Amino acid sequence: MSKKTNRRQRASSDIPALLFDLDGTLVDTVYEHVLAWSEALQDEGIHYPSWKIHRRVGMGGEIFVKALLREIGTTAIESKVKRLGEIKKKIFMGWISKVQILPGARELLKRLSQLGVPWIIATSGGKDEVAPLLKLLSLPSDAPLVTGDDVKKAKPEPDVFLAAAERLGVAVSDCIIVGDSVWDLLAARRAKGLGVGLLCGGYGRDELDRAGAYRVYKDPAELLGHLEELGIYTD
Amino acid sequence: MSKKTNRRQRASSDIPALLFDLDGTLVDTVYEHVLAWSEALQDEGIHYPSWKIHRRVGMGGEIFVKALLREIGTTAIESKVKRLGEIKKKIFMGWISKVQILPGARELLKRLSQLGVPWIIATSGGKDEVAPLLKLLSLPSDAPLVTGDDVKKAKPEPDVFLAAAERLGVAVSDCIIVGDSVWDLLAARRAKGLGVGLLCGGYGRDELDRAGAYRVYKDPAELLGHLEELGIYTD
Repeated sequence: MSKKTNRRQRASSDIPALLFDLDGTLVDTVYEHVLAWSEALQDEGIHYPSWKIHRRVGMGGEIFVKALLREIGTTAIESKVKRLGEIKKKIFMGWISKVQILPGARELLKRLSQLGVPWIIATSGGKDEVAPLLKLLSLPSDAPLVTGDDVKKAKPEPDVFLAAAERLGVAVSDCIIVGDSVWDLLAARRAKGLGVGLLCGGYGRDELDRAGAYRVYKDPAELLGHLEELGIYTD
Repeated sequence: MSKKTNRRQRASSDIPALLFDLDGTLVDTVYEHVLAWSEALQDEGIHYPSWKIHRRVGMGGEIFVKALLREIGTTAIESKVKRLGEIKKKIFMGWISKVQILPGARELLKRLSQLGVPWIIATSGGKDEVAPLLKLLSLPSDAPLVTGDDVKKAKPEPDVFLAAAERLGVAVSDCIIVGDSVWDLLAARRAKGLGVGLLCGGYGRDELDRAGAYRVYKDPAELLGHLEELGIYTD
C-alpha cells in the first residue's frame, strides 16, 4: 500500500494510530535507568547529579553520553562513550527482574486492540533490553515494535516514530505519539505527529505542556479513561 | 537572649538566616530514596509507581507510608508502617557509600559561614541516616542540625524548621528556607519563612513555583552565585 492510500484510509476511518514510548510510559524503569547511569559514570570517575540524568533519560544513550561529556568539558572519545553505555546496560539489566509495569499499561494496549486501533511501541532501547519488558507487558515477542536497533538515529531524532508509523502503514501525521519525556514530545513535533505526555516518567506537567503535549495524563490508566479526548470512541 | 531581642538584631543586621533541607538539597540522595522505598514496598507485596514515590519523598517516612497505604486502600497498621520504614532504611543505608554531594553544597555552606550568615540543616531524616551525609559535606558531627528525631512531627509539618530557627536564635519569619520538594515549601509557608526551591531533587521548576518558592535555582552552586537575590551581600 502506498502512503497516499493509507492517508486516505485514515481520514475516512477517523481513528488515529498510537505510537508508544516504552520506558517511563508503559514500564516503570526511569528511576532504574537514572541510577544505572549514575553508577556507570561513577565507575568512570564522573560525578554527575541524578536529576540531570533524569532529564536526559529518554534520549538515545549515545547522544546522552556525548552531551554529558561535552557539558563537563571531557572529550567524547568513541571508546569511552561505548564503554559507558556497556557498563550502564549491565547494571540496568541486573535490576530488570525488579521492574514493574505502569498502572493500566496492559489494559490500555488490550483495549486498543479490541477497538481495532493500530498501535506500536517505539523505543530508543536495544532489542535485548526490550525483550524482558515485552514479557512484563504480557506481549508476544512479535508484538508491534521498533527499537533503537532498527534506526540510525535515536530520540530526540524523529526516526524511531517515523519507522513505527511506516511499520503500521499509516502517515505519522495521523499518529498520536505517547511518551513521558520532553524528548518524545520533541521527536513527535519533528515527526509532525500529535504528542501526548504521561507524568509517570517523573517530569512535571508543565515541562510536558511546554514541550508541546496536546494532553497530559498521569499514566496509561488515566489515558485509557480518556480515549475520547484523543478521538478514539469506545462505543 | 529572648526572641524579641533576636528579632530586633535580625532587623538591624538585615541578613537573613538560612535553613537547609538535606536530601535532594545538599546531597544527591532523592533517586536512591525512591528506589529504596520501591524495593521495600515490593518486599511487602505492594506495587507503587516510582514517580509517585518521588513526589512524596521529602515528607517524613511515616506520613508518606500512611498516605500511600490509604491511597491503595490498605489499612495503615502501625506495625506495617514501622516495618516498611525499617526495610527501606536498611536498603538505603546499603547504598549510602555511593551517594554524592550536590554541586556547590560544600562551597555554599563555607561561604555563608565566612559571611557570618547563620545557617542550619533541617531534615526529616533520622540522626543515624544523617551522620554519613554530614561527613560527605565535610561538616563536623556538631554542625548546626535539626533532625526528625528532634521533633514530633516531620515535614510537611513546619516543626523541623521552627525548631531550626529556634536553635539559631532567630525568628523563622527572618529565615530563608531552602529545599527541593514541595513539602519543604509547604512547611516554609506554614512556618511563615521565605521558601526557595532547588531543582536538584528532580521536581519541575513550575511545581516549585506553584508551591510558593520565592526563587528557584538549579542547585546549591547556582544559589551561591545569586546570594544578592536573597538579600545576602558578599562585598
